[in-house]
Amino acid sequence: MYTLGIDIGSTTSKCVILEDGKMIRAMSLVTAGTGTNGPAQAYEQVLQSAGLTQADLDYVVATGYGRKTYEAADAQMSELTCHAKGVYFQNPKCRTIIDIGGQDAKVIRLNENGGIADFVMNDKCAAGTGRFLDVMAGLLQMPVSDLQKYALAAKEPVRISSTCTVFAESEVISQLSQNVDMANLVAGICNSVASRTAALAKRAGIRETVCMSGGVAQNHGVLSALSRELDVPVVEVEYAQYMGALGAAIAAYEKVI
Amino acid sequence: MYTLGIDIGSTTSKCVILEDGKMIRAMSLVTAGTGTNGPAQAYEQVLQSAGLTQADLDYVVATGYGRKTYEAADAQMSELTCHAKGVYFQNPKCRTIIDIGGQDAKVIRLNENGGIADFVMNDKCAAGTGRFLDVMAGLLQMPVSDLQKYALAAKEPVRISSTCTVFAESEVISQLSQNVDMANLVAGICNSVASRTAALAKRAGIRETVCMSGGVAQNHGVLSALSRELDVPVVEVEYAQYMGALGAAIAAYEKVI
Ligand code: SF4
Repeated sequence: MYTLGIDIGSTTSKCVILEDGKMIRAMSLVTAGTGTNGPAQAYEQVLQSAGLTQADLDYVVATGYGRKTYEAADAQMSELTCHAKGVYFQNPKCRTIIDIGGQDAKVIRLNENGGIADFVMNDKCAAGTGRFLDVMAGLLQMPVSDLQKYALAAKEPVRISSTCTVFAESEVISQLSQNVDMANLVAGICNSVASRTAALAKRAGIRETVCMSGGVAQNHGVLSALSRELDVPVVEVEYAQYMGALGAAIAAYEKVI
Repeated sequence: MYTLGIDIGSTTSKCVILEDGKMIRAMSLVTAGTGTNGPAQAYEQVLQSAGLTQADLDYVVATGYGRKTYEAADAQMSELTCHAKGVYFQNPKCRTIIDIGGQDAKVIRLNENGGIADFVMNDKCAAGTGRFLDVMAGLLQMPVSDLQKYALAAKEPVRISSTCTVFAESEVISQLSQNVDMANLVAGICNSVASRTAALAKRAGIRETVCMSGGVAQNHGVLSALSRELDVPVVEVEYAQYMGALGAAIAAYEKVI
C-alpha cells in the first residue's frame, strides 16, 4: 500500500511516499511553494523517483500553509499534527520537537504515544528563524549552507547583543568593518538564533529526547548552540525538512487501514 | 542667565541654550553621536549661533545614551526625565508623550505638574521605530523625509500584515513587483509604525493632550495615522527632535536658581 504526503509551504513543496505505513519509498523537494507549480512538480518528481503512477496511490494528505488551495489531495491536515507524526515516526523516544523553519520556529511537546501535549510558536518575529540566517548570510555574501562550516570552526564566538534581526544586522556590519574573524562572527550569528529558540523552548518545557527538525536543523552550528543553551543533547532528525510531508503520508496511511 | 543642555545619542548630538530658564536662545544638531566629535561640534555650533562663549554658560547638563562619557558637563540626567521636562515646557497641557526615535519608541504619561506618572518603552524591536522607516525608505530608494509627502497623498493605504520589519520588507518588495501605487504603499508603511506605537501607548494609557516628539514626529503620515489609531488628536511638539536637549537645559537652570 502506498500513501503520499505533500507539504506545501510558502517557498517550498515537499512530498513523501510511504510504503505500508512503514518505509519511506521516495521524497522530493521543490523550491517553489503555494500559488506556483511547485506542488505539482514535487508530486510528479516523487512518483517518478518511486517508480509509481498516480493510480498506485491509496491516499493523499496535504499539509502546510498552502494545503487548502491544493485540490489533488484526498484530505488536508494541520502542519502541527503532521509534523509531530513525522518526527515521532523517525524517533519514538522524542518528547520535545524544536522546529526552526524558514520563517517561523515552533516547539512541540509530545506525550508517550506521540500525541501533542503542548506547543509554542513564533511566526511573528524573524529573529530565531531561518530568515535571520538568510539575512546574515546575505550580509556576509555567502550561501546559508556555508554558515555551519564557519560556526563549527569558531574559537571565541562574537556576542551579538541585539535579538532583533534589524539591529543585529547593524552589529554584524560594524563587526565586519573591524575585520573580526569570520568563524567567530558566524558562530555568534548561530548562537543568536539558538538563544532565541531556547527561550521559546523553555516556555514549552523541555523533556528529553529533544529532536530538531526544519531546514535549520542541518546547521550544526545552531544545533550545538541550542544543545549548550538548553543543557541537554539535541538530536537532528533524519530528513529534517520532510517531517510535515512524512507526517501527512502517515496520516494518509491511518485513513486507509 | 544661560544654561546649556546636550543630548548625546548613538547617531546624533543636539544642544539647546536656554536664556533665564524661559527662552530658547539657540539650538544645534550634528548627525554624529557618542564616541565621535559630534558632541563637541554640536556644543561649538550652539555657542556660535547664540553669539556666546563657554564663559557665559552658568551650567551644562548632559543627557542621552552617551552622557556618561561626556566630560564637559556639570551634571548628567536621564533621558526620560529630560524628555518629559522638554515636552512639558513646550506644551504644559501635555499628559501623554509619544516619542518615536531612530531606534526606539517610548510613551510617557505626565501628571499635572509635568512629573512622570508612568512610561513604557520599546528598544528591542525595530518595528514601530524610525529604523523601520529607514529600512523601507531604503527599499523604495527615497530619502526618509520624502515618505510623508507620499503618505499624505494616499487614497487607499496598502495593508501590511506583518509587524516584523524583516517580514514587512518582503511584503513591500512583493507590492513593488505588482506596481502598486507608491502613495498607498508609503501610507501603509506609516500606518504600520503607527499601529505598533499605538499598541505601546495603550499599554501606558492615553490621556489628552497627546504630544508626539522624536525624529519621526516630523512625518505627518505617521502622526495622523497615530491619531486615527488612538482616536484622539495627536499634536506635534515644536522642535520635536530637541526635547532631550531642551529638558537638559531646563534641568541645568533648575540646578542654579
Ligand atoms: S525584533 Fe526585529 S526581527 Fe523581531 S519582530 Fe521586531 S523587527 Fe522583526
